[in-house]
Amino acid sequence: MEYIFSDKLASMKPSAIREIFKSLSDPTIISFAAGNPSPLSFPSEEMARIAADIFANNATMALQYGTTEGYAPLIEAVNARLADRFSISGDDDQTIITSGGQQGIELACKALCNEGDAVICENPTFIGALNAFRSNGAATIGVPLCDDGIDTKKLEETISSTPNAKLLYVIPTFHNPAGITSTAENRKKVYEIAKKHGLIILEDNPYGELRFAGEDVPTIKSIDTEGIVLYCSSFSKILSAGMRVGFIRGPREIIQKMVIAKQVEDVHTNMLFQMLCHRFMTECDLDAHIAGIRKLYGAKCALMLECLDREMPDFVSFTRPEGGLFIWCTLPDDLDAAEFVRRALEKKVAVVPGATFNADPAAPSKSFRLNYSMPSDEDIVKGIKALGEVAREMAK
Amino acid sequence: MEYIFSDKLASMKPSAIREIFKSLSDPTIISFAAGNPSPLSFPSEEMARIAADIFANNATMALQYGTTEGYAPLIEAVNARLADRFSISGDDDQTIITSGGQQGIELACKALCNEGDAVICENPTFIGALNAFRSNGAATIGVPLCDDGIDTKKLEETISSTPNAKLLYVIPTFHNPAGITSTAENRKKVYEIAKKHGLIILEDNPYGELRFAGEDVPTIKSIDTEGIVLYCSSFSKILSAGMRVGFIRGPREIIQKMVIAKQVEDVHTNMLFQMLCHRFMTECDLDAHIAGIRKLYGAKCALMLECLDREMPDFVSFTRPEGGLFIWCTLPDDLDAAEFVRRALEKKVAVVPGATFNADPAAPSKSFRLNYSMPSDEDIVKGIKALGEVAREMAK
Repeated sequence: MEYIFSDKLASMKPSAIREIFKSLSDPTIISFAAGNPSPLSFPSEEMARIAADIFANNATMALQYGTTEGYAPLIEAVNARLADRFSISGDDDQTIITSGGQQGIELACKALCNEGDAVICENPTFIGALNAFRSNGAATIGVPLCDDGIDTKKLEETISSTPNAKLLYVIPTFHNPAGITSTAENRKKVYEIAKKHGLIILEDNPYGELRFAGEDVPTIKSIDTEGIVLYCSSFSKILSAGMRVGFIRGPREIIQKMVIAKQVEDVHTNMLFQMLCHRFMTECDLDAHIAGIRKLYGAKCALMLECLDREMPDFVSFTRPEGGLFIWCTLPDDLDAAEFVRRALEKKVAVVPGATFNADPAAPSKSFRLNYSMPSDEDIVKGIKALGEVAREMAK
Repeated sequence: MEYIFSDKLASMKPSAIREIFKSLSDPTIISFAAGNPSPLSFPSEEMARIAADIFANNATMALQYGTTEGYAPLIEAVNARLADRFSISGDDDQTIITSGGQQGIELACKALCNEGDAVICENPTFIGALNAFRSNGAATIGVPLCDDGIDTKKLEETISSTPNAKLLYVIPTFHNPAGITSTAENRKKVYEIAKKHGLIILEDNPYGELRFAGEDVPTIKSIDTEGIVLYCSSFSKILSAGMRVGFIRGPREIIQKMVIAKQVEDVHTNMLFQMLCHRFMTECDLDAHIAGIRKLYGAKCALMLECLDREMPDFVSFTRPEGGLFIWCTLPDDLDAAEFVRRALEKKVAVVPGATFNADPAAPSKSFRLNYSMPSDEDIVKGIKALGEVAREMAK
């Protein structure tokens, strides 16, 4: 039988990252391709203790249906942390628990965009977000990302020339894939532009807790006086990715539509892990735990940068992140990133080609993404050495 | 700010069931309104033991990202059970793990239906499925449900007059809300009609393991030679609803599109509970556990039917389910079900009005749904007595 698919999914293919992941089943390959947190960042002993206690004393609640909005004590703990750490509060806003940060992104698009509408985003940006927008039939329009954040001049031009734009998606802090943190000035400007044009901003901040250098920059949500910013994040990078617990906060009216959309997607998020997150946040020292992750990633990032400084020819540029999981490398105009990635894989090093993160999937890219949270120190040294060789060979 | 929502979500409201649930915070109300499994059906001690073992010996896998398709050993165990219990196998098919049965329904619609397309379903049917279709912008077209299953004559007429129908959604076994199990003849006829018209069937079977009387009827999927049936189910009614683990099986090509759609919704389903389901299925006596649930629900259903026989005036008819969670009661033409539900709530008994389950939400209903898995025996006796009084008072 010949199957006919919905227009929005018919043209979608599994992402390039997934294809690269398949090659990773070869254990001799050094992977800088992952987006995974280090397993060392999972507080598994404390989680095991709390889970055992929940099973012993509150099993029925953990195993029974819950409300779509999420486990109320967890929502309260999340709100307290958002207020405390990120200056995010506001009586007109509401927080709901999502099945990972990914779901918050997808629900926001589903609530606000019709098929044929557009989402404006940084170029490059997170592939999971791009595909969430595409799966809702929305067009993805990229605006170049500069060293201080999205190019605000081009942003304004793009909004003006995109009357059906419904959402502006940004990752201002420790950008995936670019490793950039936008400045406070850039964020204010982005907010003012969105406000002027009546555009809703979706601020994605999954790495916001992972700063290992520099000073915090206020979130866009913290300066939102008009109710135009949705803020999503998750526990994936600070407690566990596999449990799928995230959250989104924003204007109550929008969040209520997202609750309806979430209800039909998965009814609610896994109860035991919602309860576990709440217990961890209120009983354990989350700040001390996160400090440990920052130290780990700070050291790994420093090592990778040190290797890049040493091994990479000068014509390869790269970002110097102050947090998060990724370094973004860019080749000169005359070298092809797709070819670089292919040659790197021949040398048993996997990196993600930059085109993967393009709003326009057909656009070329001179860049590739490196992850430092997963590889061992030994593999970082060995792998970056190999990448340096690839760059030099290609320049010959 | 005035927010503009997507067309598909703009008109959607939280379901009537949710509103009824809010009134259930009053502990003096006897609720027959739930769709929840009994907490007695959760094997919490064995689950606690397995979870502890996973945390002790395999924490990294449980807490790290997994593949969107699901945990391979669980898929294998599900496939073995589908073949063994439901005669479902086939090399051209694939099974993926979903975040509850709900997600399988939603993904099927997302993969196959454009906005403006139609899903044909039994009338009444599961409200979660109706809302999943609506949230994808699909119209829901109901075909009356008879004692032996969907009305096949009207089904054929409806398909013929609905050229944009892309999916036929049915719950052939222990129907929610109607409690009906369709006959083998009806299923064959439904399959033949769908085949003739090139329509994909989505067979939802979340209660299929919960038979406490009568004989198994072959699933529609088991007679699918053409690759036109998607089969979804979940662990919610046999292990735990709160963990959100389900599955869907069908033609590989369709399932692959659903994988892409699932990836953008939640990346993958909670890993620890996928591993836990696999361990429970392979290490514990799942059949013995399910036999216990059947016995429990069989007794509760028998008690509720006995009370209905005794307390309800003859003009109220009701189904006599052989499994599942629900009894469907129907008033005579001159009585109004919405009024019945309102009066019942005044007497502190909550039931769900039939209109909730109508494909056309504006259509009236003479019916209401009763759940027997959650209330205590005492509450069943007391609550049905009160409902009998309501019926007699309304007939005066």
